[in-house]
Amino acid sequence: MSDDHSRCRAPVDVRRAGSAERLEDSIAVETAVALVYNGISHAVMMATPADLEDFALGFSLTEGILQTPDELYAIEVREEAAGVSVHLEVATQRFMELKQRRRSLAGRTGCGLCGTESLEQAIRPIGRVTAPAVGDDTIQHALEALRWHQPLQRETGATHGAAWCDLDGQVQLAREDVGRHNALDKLIGALAVRDCAMRSGFALVSSRASYEMVQKCVAAGIGCLVAVSAPTSLAIEQARQAGLMLVGFARTGRHVIYHQPASESMPAVQASGG
Amino acid sequence: MSDDHSRCRAPVDVRRAGSAERLEDSIAVETAVALVYNGISHAVMMATPADLEDFALGFSLTEGILQTPDELYAIEVREEAAGVSVHLEVATQRFMELKQRRRSLAGRTGCGLCGTESLEQAIRPIGRVTAPAVGDDTIQHALEALRWHQPLQRETGATHGAAWCDLDGQVQLAREDVGRHNALDKLIGALAVRDCAMRSGFALVSSRASYEMVQKCVAAGIGCLVAVSAPTSLAIEQARQAGLMLVGFARTGRHVIYHQPASESMPAVQASGG
Repeated sequence: MSDDHSRCRAPVDVRRAGSAERLEDSIAVETAVALVYNGISHAVMMATPADLEDFALGFSLTEGILQTPDELYAIEVREEAAGVSVHLEVATQRFMELKQRRRSLAGRTGCGLCGTESLEQAIRPIGRVTAPAVGDDTIQHALEALRWHQPLQRETGATHGAAWCDLDGQVQLAREDVGRHNALDKLIGALAVRDCAMRSGFALVSSRASYEMVQKCVAAGIGCLVAVSAPTSLAIEQARQAGLMLVGFARTGRHVIYHQPASESMPAVQASGG
Repeated sequence: MSDDHSRCRAPVDVRRAGSAERLEDSIAVETAVALVYNGISHAVMMATPADLEDFALGFSLTEGILQTPDELYAIEVREEAAGVSVHLEVATQRFMELKQRRRSLAGRTGCGLCGTESLEQAIRPIGRVTAPAVGDDTIQHALEALRWHQPLQRETGATHGAAWCDLDGQVQLAREDVGRHNALDKLIGALAVRDCAMRSGFALVSSRASYEMVQKCVAAGIGCLVAVSAPTSLAIEQARQAGLMLVGFARTGRHVIYHQPASESMPAVQASGG
């Protein structure tokens, strides 16, 4: 599926003080995407229909449906009347576990909006990661670079970006989506098939850092998350538990470190090259 | 539950070119909130634990669990070890329908991440609303006013706001949350118990306008949605179907009209007083 599906045109009225102008505007596409595992539809999400193979793999990994990328044998994206379906053929063992998970959900009173009905299930146990030493200059360089890796955002103003950056602050890979969770899942899926050494870099996202963003990073073995906007209380708590370096409000000339794992020495100000 | 639960303090390191400063920062609280109907837990969402009665009522209305506010007989917010639970006592008829809905979900192969497993279910049928005549000056006045109704955002930089504005551009009521859907549900819940005449005003949100934001407005009978950021393709489509006036990129001195129902005469530029 080409990137052309990710934007469309619509007539709009631009109103400024005392004037009205009719234009054609570029709009980010949001569509229903169904993930189908070995023929069984598991979940539907609203997403931008580009890089959907990356999305499906990344989601499968960060949600714990798959343990490793090679458990995905085949993947096919199909356009349907009501949206897009992504068909994944996965290892039998993982598919049995998914069926079991779904049966146990159904066996209880049912499941809620997010497949979760009790408070105890809501906050999933989080693993541990090793935080890389990411210097202040590195973060600033990556931020500068990010804007050149968000073509859909530049055109539509409606999408979030997630980028994988090396320790010189170079953006190695980036993905976009109308949803910030989806953008991160797409990035993680794209990294997984490229077999990148996750520990020698960090994730940079154009959005806020909430609970789920930290969860997804840790599930993928990413040790540092830099967010352009604010973290929530739960994101900070989870970063502390996981040993993830968490940076927020990353803006030109200034960023805020919300958690730096104690096991790593605090990098000195202006420490890293780049 | 007081607003004090909606923010907490955390030590942070602020890095600027050549300097590091250790501060205490104000952080928006994100917590797991379970909605429990007549003793049965239905859904858990991550939200800011303030105005949770409004949230629970608004969610119940926009998700079609309740038809009218008076079907909610009692509500109680309880702090739990793993989060907060909101206990709703609702009309027997509505509870039976909710149980039936859950049984039919469980009866199929199970349900997905968002309680939806097929593409056909994902895009719910949308109703019709009557769009009010909202003038350009009204929108600009409301935008100016919005910032004074986002105390949590001002303190933490992490939350979205949703405000109900009258046709003079005055903010009548506003709510905040780490999630934009939640902020809108809180506003709708707060409006519902105040029995506001929904059609003589509009909703203004600090976020983007996606599919679900339009769905929620229409479910609540709101005829105009003004968003500070971009709409998605599906939001525009849904606005056209529902007859909702949809405005995006509402910034000081400029906003963009994405859909203006044909049945309403286009208000002239600088038409409305305020």
